[in-house]
Amino acid sequence: MALDEFSLIDRYFKHLFGPSPAVVIGPGDDCAVLTVPPECELCVSTDTLLEGVHFPPGATGAVVASRTVAANLSDLAAMGADPHSVVLALTIPNLDEAWLQDFSETLKKQLARFNAPLVGGNISRGPLSLTMTVLGCTPRGAAIVRSGARPGDHVYVTGTLGDAGRGLELVRAGESQGFLVERYESPTPRLALGVALRGMASAMVDVSDGLLADVSHIALSSQVAMTLNIENLPLSDALLNSAGAKAGQQFALTAGDDYELCFAAPDSAAASLVELGKSQGIPITKIGDVTEGQGVRVLDAEGDLIDPGFSGYQHFS
Amino acid sequence: MALDEFSLIDRYFKHLFGPSPAVVIGPGDDCAVLTVPPECELCVSTDTLLEGVHFPPGATGAVVASRTVAANLSDLAAMGADPHSVVLALTIPNLDEAWLQDFSETLKKQLARFNAPLVGGNISRGPLSLTMTVLGCTPRGAAIVRSGARPGDHVYVTGTLGDAGRGLELVRAGESQGFLVERYESPTPRLALGVALRGMASAMVDVSDGLLADVSHIALSSQVAMTLNIENLPLSDALLNSAGAKAGQQFALTAGDDYELCFAAPDSAAASLVELGKSQGIPITKIGDVTEGQGVRVLDAEGDLIDPGFSGYQHFS
Repeated sequence: MALDEFSLIDRYFKHLFGPSPAVVIGPGDDCAVLTVPPECELCVSTDTLLEGVHFPPGATGAVVASRTVAANLSDLAAMGADPHSVVLALTIPNLDEAWLQDFSETLKKQLARFNAPLVGGNISRGPLSLTMTVLGCTPRGAAIVRSGARPGDHVYVTGTLGDAGRGLELVRAGESQGFLVERYESPTPRLALGVALRGMASAMVDVSDGLLADVSHIALSSQVAMTLNIENLPLSDALLNSAGAKAGQQFALTAGDDYELCFAAPDSAAASLVELGKSQGIPITKIGDVTEGQGVRVLDAEGDLIDPGFSGYQHFS
Repeated sequence: MALDEFSLIDRYFKHLFGPSPAVVIGPGDDCAVLTVPPECELCVSTDTLLEGVHFPPGATGAVVASRTVAANLSDLAAMGADPHSVVLALTIPNLDEAWLQDFSETLKKQLARFNAPLVGGNISRGPLSLTMTVLGCTPRGAAIVRSGARPGDHVYVTGTLGDAGRGLELVRAGESQGFLVERYESPTPRLALGVALRGMASAMVDVSDGLLADVSHIALSSQVAMTLNIENLPLSDALLNSAGAKAGQQFALTAGDDYELCFAAPDSAAASLVELGKSQGIPITKIGDVTEGQGVRVLDAEGDLIDPGFSGYQHFS
């Protein structure tokens, strides 16, 4: 069956384009035309997901859509930004209509869930890959950057870590369901928490490449040292039951894809953080401290230095 | 040689990130943070270029950079928008450092030429492809959309048509220089003309897929018919000398990649358009008329209907 780009967009993507107060001209022109609220500073990020690299070969359309949305919106969450709109450049090798249907339905559901209207896109034929560009808003000066951590701050993380890393192992071994698989296949970007952390967090990243790698971005940008206590890393019961404590800690330190938020915050924020975690129903766990110096150290329960022996995902190593 | 994503960005792309009044936080965080002027409506477009589809296998870094910038900024030109900023997601198969050097130098030059700061990006390893997302500004209500053409308007095109189509043929035959090759390898997005056409053009597209295909977008969006006079298509001397008049007209009708602007404008704009073409040093040629009805027709010198027998580039036909 031959379908041109325009017919493809009509069939699988037009229903995604709903009216939105931000959209003056929607898809179908050379550009989308958008309004940006006057108090908004615009946060922009672009991220590519490739088959065989960022999701397993043969992944369903639903998994690819969920992971694409989560990976991209997570970058907005890490700035404390509200989603404004997204565009998607999709490259597909062939016309697998069932796959496209699955993909577009999940894309619609996930974008609606996070209030991120799709305002434009592009379809090409080639090896399966997805590049989403996300736009978000923060009030002027309110974006939470990587460079704001100060000695004396503490290091926190949302949710639990390592689930997605173990989930990917299980997917590769043929598992198709369960909490850990779900955490890999359909992660939740922590958008509401990110927004709530404006004014509380001094620096923030999302955990996408692995905790150690992502924390080191804060340390480097802020020109501080960070010390993590491995015993404090929040691990889910599912991860502990599936992998045990030791492997679970390794996943938590080095596996990516959890899309939790890791941030620094001063002492004065401690009580508010407890309240915030309760009100949002997502644990916020203190996992370490910020000091003078540089680099990231990991301590065991006795306070001895651990050499974790590996770092996060590096695309070209 | 092993280089991680961050080292690659440091080496080849960091020098592209200059300060800009629009940039609050530049690359190196989870998002770039940008200011948007309060009177600005934001134009957004995303476009993917794939090796072997949008540029020949083995194309130099300079050619790939030039074509990526032109294809993307041309979508802003087609709205009458000024560039605001761009992000680039680059997927490369290996670390060809000479290629990356060539690519990044040309990217820097072309983005500076069009005042479009690079504010963020992403590098992955995979089949060579480039997805650029461009942001632009128009005053509120000033964007030139596809749907504004009215019966009685005339159809115009900037520059000359068909050069890039013939240029690609020459590249495939082994030519590496000359006007036509240059028109394919380093096209010029008509940004200044696009901005100048605000308030004059009633509808506009850029000529990227081929004149007939692109004009049909205006006809369909505006719910009008358009009649083109094949003898009026502006052909360069180089194209006439290289391909002859008849093949030249075919290139002009159906080959893409010229990145000229095609627009409709009312009678009342005719004198201003002549002045505009003179002041910018780019011919603006009347090539047809807008009438009631639907579809696009092409007439020969005698006014007889021609069946061009083909349409523009269709990714999935």
